[in-house]
Amino acid sequence: MTELRDTAPATAAPGAGTLLRLLRDGRPRTRSELASVTGLARSTVTQRVDALLASGLIGPSGEAVSTGGRPPTTFCFRPEARVALAADLGATHTRTALTDMSGQILAEEGIDLEIAAGPEAVLDWVVEHGRVLLDRAGRSEAELLGLGLGLPGPVQHATGRAVNPPIMPGWDHFDVPGYVRSHLDVPVLVDNDVNIMAVGEHHVSWPTASHLMFVKVATGIGCGIVSEGRVYRGAQGAAGDMGHVFVPSGSDKPCRCGNTGCLEAVASGTALAEALTIEGVPASGAREIVDLARGGSVPVLRALRQAGRDIGEVLAAAVNMFNPSVIVIGGAMALAGDHLLAGVREIIYQRSLPLATEHLSIVSSTAGEGAGVVGAAVMVIEHCLSPGAADALVARA
Amino acid sequence: MTELRDTAPATAAPGAGTLLRLLRDGRPRTRSELASVTGLARSTVTQRVDALLASGLIGPSGEAVSTGGRPPTTFCFRPEARVALAADLGATHTRTALTDMSGQILAEEGIDLEIAAGPEAVLDWVVEHGRVLLDRAGRSEAELLGLGLGLPGPVQHATGRAVNPPIMPGWDHFDVPGYVRSHLDVPVLVDNDVNIMAVGEHHVSWPTASHLMFVKVATGIGCGIVSEGRVYRGAQGAAGDMGHVFVPSGSDKPCRCGNTGCLEAVASGTALAEALTIEGVPASGAREIVDLARGGSVPVLRALRQAGRDIGEVLAAAVNMFNPSVIVIGGAMALAGDHLLAGVREIIYQRSLPLATEHLSIVSSTAGEGAGVVGAAVMVIEHCLSPGAADALVARA
Repeated sequence: MTELRDTAPATAAPGAGTLLRLLRDGRPRTRSELASVTGLARSTVTQRVDALLASGLIGPSGEAVSTGGRPPTTFCFRPEARVALAADLGATHTRTALTDMSGQILAEEGIDLEIAAGPEAVLDWVVEHGRVLLDRAGRSEAELLGLGLGLPGPVQHATGRAVNPPIMPGWDHFDVPGYVRSHLDVPVLVDNDVNIMAVGEHHVSWPTASHLMFVKVATGIGCGIVSEGRVYRGAQGAAGDMGHVFVPSGSDKPCRCGNTGCLEAVASGTALAEALTIEGVPASGAREIVDLARGGSVPVLRALRQAGRDIGEVLAAAVNMFNPSVIVIGGAMALAGDHLLAGVREIIYQRSLPLATEHLSIVSSTAGEGAGVVGAAVMVIEHCLSPGAADALVARA
Repeated sequence: MTELRDTAPATAAPGAGTLLRLLRDGRPRTRSELASVTGLARSTVTQRVDALLASGLIGPSGEAVSTGGRPPTTFCFRPEARVALAADLGATHTRTALTDMSGQILAEEGIDLEIAAGPEAVLDWVVEHGRVLLDRAGRSEAELLGLGLGLPGPVQHATGRAVNPPIMPGWDHFDVPGYVRSHLDVPVLVDNDVNIMAVGEHHVSWPTASHLMFVKVATGIGCGIVSEGRVYRGAQGAAGDMGHVFVPSGSDKPCRCGNTGCLEAVASGTALAEALTIEGVPASGAREIVDLARGGSVPVLRALRQAGRDIGEVLAAAVNMFNPSVIVIGGAMALAGDHLLAGVREIIYQRSLPLATEHLSIVSSTAGEGAGVVGAAVMVIEHCLSPGAADALVARA
């Protein structure tokens, strides 16, 4: 059986992905070390290393110290060998980027683009500008690992389709990967914008955090959870729907979901703008609130502090139940300064148990508006370099 | 390197654990199938299968269909080859059991035992009665895989020590595994009682559930979470501390943790007993409340329904945030009938999003009081049969 497989044409390369996973840490290793760590037969390792070298995914990196005889060659991962395309689609603004396999941005572009223009127009633009970015970075489509997309609405990750998205006419159940792949034949991964922001923030600023919660406070309120290196999705992929958790201070406020007292109904940009306008401080939404806060408007600062407290109520419960190591507050409203964050901290430290908050960091987003594209790229990279997918990638090369 | 390892004495058997993990699904496989699936060299597979056969962990199970020549032998896992001891230590009652490697109980025993007697007296009893159970089942200490212990307080799982347990004088930071191993030289794993109940309930009643939350409602209120087959512990192991989440209905009630408005201060057995006594329905705790409920006391049924609603408030938020597939309500108070469960369901279906509740089961514990020992045994079995540990186990045999 082994013999048969070892001499078969390389339609697949089982084991290549396992070697690649090891080498992704950047440390050079010899063939002997790779055989020893994986338990794979030495002949299999030699063959897989040859296939990985041919694919360009690894390269020789030097020589190990000899124990007698010719010193053995060491090999290491080459993150520059392939590139990933990423697009973070917002309601009215889209950002695209090209990265290498370490998530480093090689080229990027932002444009005002209405998601409501519908999937075909928007995805045509993404593909076209993806090609522009490849050109600009001097890379070819053959080097492209895949495309990662973030959408501003609920996404069924397994199929890459939006499901009942409130602000995306024409997108409901549209086959995003299928449409893109008719123009660009690479793996296409789709997720909602908060999940890719959580992945990007984790990758850029908190790579060693075991449990990170990223809270996006903007027109709505959502949460992406990265648990032990992976997006936590829950049973139906519905995890992180923080905006519709009940908060006592909003008990009678109607929410667009049909319920009353949801967090989003009291603490989102939309809710704050409405409440401030009634108070005589007219505001149209999150961006204007940020401007007013920067101008020092006391009612706005007070409203932001209270919104932070309301968000903190929901997070305090999540801290006790799920014990994260980092909570990151991001999204347009987080640009208003520390008032929102101060409210969040006030309630979490008041309400959560000392054991759960002892080592907890509660911070503003540092990856900022670029978190989304980095996260979308990392999603593609992790998918394409997972052992099974990498076996196929090497066999194709 | 490979040659060296292959001819080295079997102080370790890398790969044996991987083969065992495959075979644990109960399906018989040939050596060729094992080599093909794992990518291990055929010679390695042959050697590891021999080691596994010698250890008794697998056995020949028949012959595969021949493709010409002598039909190859198939092998399968033998769950009866080893046994696990388990003890679920409560405040005043302890249950011990001996199981095989499928978690099937071979012998069990319950006894009234005060945890406050201190770790040495209690653990001496556990070891002594563990030996009694081994005798009764006709098994020897050499067949013992390990001992799993559940403690009624917060436990640092990695070290097996209780940390600031409120009802366990003498146990704080006591080295439980170290003490037990001076009497019984096997791996000792310790966790809190709610985590082992969650594992036991998952194993017995919901083995295919991807995300299960087990809520214990008794003197206090706690929650164990099993996510994709493993206990979810969070960053500091503090996950599941549900009893001290704030609930609006309890805003001014002081809690033993020093805060006010905790779920435990309004919905635990202790809280209900106090409130009912003030109302003129004297009750001493969870057990008496169950008796009164079974007798049809209207104030007690009303109190249970409200306690369910309060627990439901906390769970509704957890459903939106973490999207479990199953919520199990257990513990002494859950024995009072469906009134508690009805309150939980009322609020979750009212407050949580349709997508998150569409496939959500909210049920009473069916594994019942035996869930704890089964979970403690499963914890030991999973630990000892994990690939790395199993390699060592096979090498020792």
